[in-house]
Amino acid sequence: MFITFEGVDGAGKSTQIEKLTNFLRKNGKKFVLTREPGGCEISEKIRNIILDTKSDLGAVGELFLYFAARAEHIRQVIKPSLESGKWVICDRFADSTFAYQGAGRGLDICKMKEINSFATQEIVPDLTILLDISVKVSLERRKLRAKSLDRLEQNDEIFFENVRNRFLELAKNEQKRFLIIDGNLDENEIYEKIIAKIVKVM
Amino acid sequence: MFITFEGVDGAGKSTQIEKLTNFLRKNGKKFVLTREPGGCEISEKIRNIILDTKSDLGAVGELFLYFAARAEHIRQVIKPSLESGKWVICDRFADSTFAYQGAGRGLDICKMKEINSFATQEIVPDLTILLDISVKVSLERRKLRAKSLDRLEQNDEIFFENVRNRFLELAKNEQKRFLIIDGNLDENEIYEKIIAKIVKVM
Repeated sequence: MFITFEGVDGAGKSTQIEKLTNFLRKNGKKFVLTREPGGCEISEKIRNIILDTKSDLGAVGELFLYFAARAEHIRQVIKPSLESGKWVICDRFADSTFAYQGAGRGLDICKMKEINSFATQEIVPDLTILLDISVKVSLERRKLRAKSLDRLEQNDEIFFENVRNRFLELAKNEQKRFLIIDGNLDENEIYEKIIAKIVKVM
Repeated sequence: MFITFEGVDGAGKSTQIEKLTNFLRKNGKKFVLTREPGGCEISEKIRNIILDTKSDLGAVGELFLYFAARAEHIRQVIKPSLESGKWVICDRFADSTFAYQGAGRGLDICKMKEINSFATQEIVPDLTILLDISVKVSLERRKLRAKSLDRLEQNDEIFFENVRNRFLELAKNEQKRFLIIDGNLDENEIYEKIIAKIVKVM
């Protein structure tokens, strides 16, 4: 199983990922926990360039850095882990690119999807958990926790509105793959919904 | 005019670029001299990742790093320079990607060309000077000058044979854009051939 978590910043991905991995550990499930952009040495280097607030980086350059990081992440971590029978739990994946660089930056989604399947060797998550919150809540949560915002988090409300809507649209188009959960719910309620889905596929 | 120099390592690009830029300077032509991968701060950072012999980098990740570096190079340097009426002289460009990552690494050329036109915003050189030498001569010259080879230069002879042949094939398919010159000629002879072409377009 290849499981990804998606959602705007502050949606509660980290909390739920921690809960899920604790659950998998207790149940003796072998898994790899990883994240995008990053997940291996070279992709973490690329991550630093992407998120650095001092980076003077255009939308297309940013997009290709995400693809470069993803291609390496797939080659070095995701593909070998899946092939060895482990589950892969990934904090953000291709849907974030379609949402942030596509809807956020306004790059063409069809082109991006084509290039993405080349970068990923057509590896697609089996399950994508989308934690959905309003942009207002996202902003409040980010303000609370962040000492400083990274280059992507610094965008304005319209950007995040577009990102959120694109996530919902992607989920609507692939209902089998996506599990949408209201991120305003209590974290234990969210966790229960995730586990209810996970036990069905274990 | 957007002029690129191409050829396998050791073909004499640096020497001829120096001669050409001296000529342009003497003739009061405004130009920008740049190179790939690199040419601006962020693309030079990407260059370091690509060429670092310690980088554990697969073919697809490498390809996308080239595209990321190129997209930024186009946005920050090449496009604004051309728009302001300057000539751009560039040491390597997209043909090197088609040759090294395409023929060298065995990635699909059609896919690469498509992605490349997205990364370059369809900017194509007006003139590409291909300095052609045999792989044997390339190897001898690289041995003479290099204290250490970068990650791309460390490839074997078959790799460079494929790269050279791809360059010649690209030139054959776009005879209007390419000027092929035998890189075994004396450097002044090569220079004369280049200048003969340049004066026609000045």
